[in-house]
Amino acid sequence: MNTDNLSINLATVRQQWTLREAVEGCARAGITAIDPWRDQVEATGRDEAARIIKDHGMRVTGYCRGGMFPAPDAAKRDAAIDDNMRAIDEAAAIGAECLVLVCGGLPQGSRDIAGARAMVRDGLAAILPHARAQNVPLAIEPLHPMYAADRACVSTLRHALDLCDALGDGVGVAIDTYHVWWDPELEAQIARAGDRILAHHICDWLVPTRDMLLDRGMMGDGVIDFPRIRRWITAAGYRGTQEVEIFSAADWWKRPGDEVLRTCIERFNSVC
Amino acid sequence: MNTDNLSINLATVRQQWTLREAVEGCARAGITAIDPWRDQVEATGRDEAARIIKDHGMRVTGYCRGGMFPAPDAAKRDAAIDDNMRAIDEAAAIGAECLVLVCGGLPQGSRDIAGARAMVRDGLAAILPHARAQNVPLAIEPLHPMYAADRACVSTLRHALDLCDALGDGVGVAIDTYHVWWDPELEAQIARAGDRILAHHICDWLVPTRDMLLDRGMMGDGVIDFPRIRRWITAAGYRGTQEVEIFSAADWWKRPGDEVLRTCIERFNSVC
Repeated sequence: MNTDNLSINLATVRQQWTLREAVEGCARAGITAIDPWRDQVEATGRDEAARIIKDHGMRVTGYCRGGMFPAPDAAKRDAAIDDNMRAIDEAAAIGAECLVLVCGGLPQGSRDIAGARAMVRDGLAAILPHARAQNVPLAIEPLHPMYAADRACVSTLRHALDLCDALGDGVGVAIDTYHVWWDPELEAQIARAGDRILAHHICDWLVPTRDMLLDRGMMGDGVIDFPRIRRWITAAGYRGTQEVEIFSAADWWKRPGDEVLRTCIERFNSVC
Repeated sequence: MNTDNLSINLATVRQQWTLREAVEGCARAGITAIDPWRDQVEATGRDEAARIIKDHGMRVTGYCRGGMFPAPDAAKRDAAIDDNMRAIDEAAAIGAECLVLVCGGLPQGSRDIAGARAMVRDGLAAILPHARAQNVPLAIEPLHPMYAADRACVSTLRHALDLCDALGDGVGVAIDTYHVWWDPELEAQIARAGDRILAHHICDWLVPTRDMLLDRGMMGDGVIDFPRIRRWITAAGYRGTQEVEIFSAADWWKRPGDEVLRTCIERFNSVC
C-alpha cells in the first residue's frame, strides 16, 4: 500500500516506543516521514536523535511543539520565549520542516482571553527573527475551542491566519482535522491560507468522545470527511504529507506499535 | 440581593425538583422568571404546568427546546418538524417569550456536515410560519463546537446570525456564555446580533472540564469573564434576563435545590 505523503506524528505511538523504536518501526512499515515531540528527542538526546533520523533517511515534517506563550508575569513570559528559542534550535538540528506551535491558554487565574491572545502575538513576534535565521518556519496550530482555556486561545484557522497576516514571512499554519473539522468557515479559510499551510495533521472525531484530550480517533472511526478537507487543502496548493496524530489512551496507545502503523497505512489508503 | 433580570433555566435543578417544586422554589427565593424544559412540562401536563406558572406570576423567558432537525431520511425529518410544531404550541400555551432551538448534529452514519446544516436551514424555514402565527420567536442557540457531531452543527454566533439573515423576522439567537465564550469574533457578532438577541444564558467553563455534557460550572467557578460579555450584550440593546443554565451531574445536581438557587442569586450579584 502507498505510504507516499504519509507522515507519522510520534505522539501516535508514544506509549509503546522510544524515538529510536518509533523510527525503526516506521522504517519497517515503509513510512519515510515523522514528526517527533520534544520530550522524545530529549529522552534520546538531541544529537543521537538527529543521527537516528538521518541514518533511517526520515523526512521530518514537523517538530512538536513550541508555544505556550501566555503566563501571569513578564519573567514567566520571557522564560516561555527562551524555551521556544531552544525549540527552534532543536527543530533545526533534526532538520524539521516546521516547528508546530500550540499557543497556550489563559494564564493561571486569568479570565482575560483577549490579553492571552495579545501575549501569543507578542511571543510569536519575539521568536520569529530567530526562527527566520534558523530557517525553521513556525506553524501555528489552531486547537479545538474546547482547549481555549488551558491549551490554545487560538481556536480557529481564521484567527491563526490573522496572526500570520500580522507577523509576515516565516509563519504559517498547521491544520489538524480533529481541531477544525466543525468550522463552518473551514473551506474559505483553507483557501485563504494558500501557501501558508505548513502541515496537515489527520485524526478523527469520535462519537461519543469519552475524554477531552486522549480519546481521539483513527481515521474512519469517527465523523470527519477526510477526502473533502483534503480536496480543499490540495486546492489551496499544499503538496506536503498527511501526518497522523492520534492521542488515544484507552485504545491505540494500548496496541502494539506495528499494529498501529499498519492501521494508519490502511486507513490512509482507504479513508483519506 | 437583587433578583431583577435573573431567570432560572429549570435544567439547573432538574434532578432535585419537579416543575411545580422548581417554580415554588424559585418563588421562595424571590426569583420571578424561569425557562422550563419540555420533559418537565410533559411530566406535569401542559395545562397544569401553565396554571402553576401563572399562579406564581412567573415570567417564562424561554422554552427548551426545539430543533434536532437533521435526520437520515425525509420521514424522520418531517417527524422532527412536526415535533417542533408541537413545541411551538406548548411554548405559546405557557407564555414563553421564545422557543430555544438546539439545531441538531450529523444524521446517524453521516459525515456530511454541510448537508446537516442545510437540513437545519430547511427545518427552520418549515416551522417559521407557525412560530410567527403563534407569536413564538425562535431562538437559535449556537452550541460549543465540541457538540457539532451529535447536538448542534450550528457552533458559532456568526453561523446562527447567517441563518437569521436568511430566514427573516421571527428568528433570533440565544447566547449562552458556556458555548460561545472562546470565540474571537464574539464581540463583533454580538454587536451584529442587535435586537435579535432573544435570550442570554449564563454558565461557567470549568478547568478541567471532566465531562463534555454534564460538568458545567456555576458563575465564578470557571474562566468566563461574565461582565465583559454582559457589556457587549447590553451595548447591542438587549434588556432581557440573564438566565442561569447549568448541567452539573457531579456537583450542583446533587445539592438541595434551595442551596443551588441561593448560590445562583449570590453569584448573579457578585460575578455577573
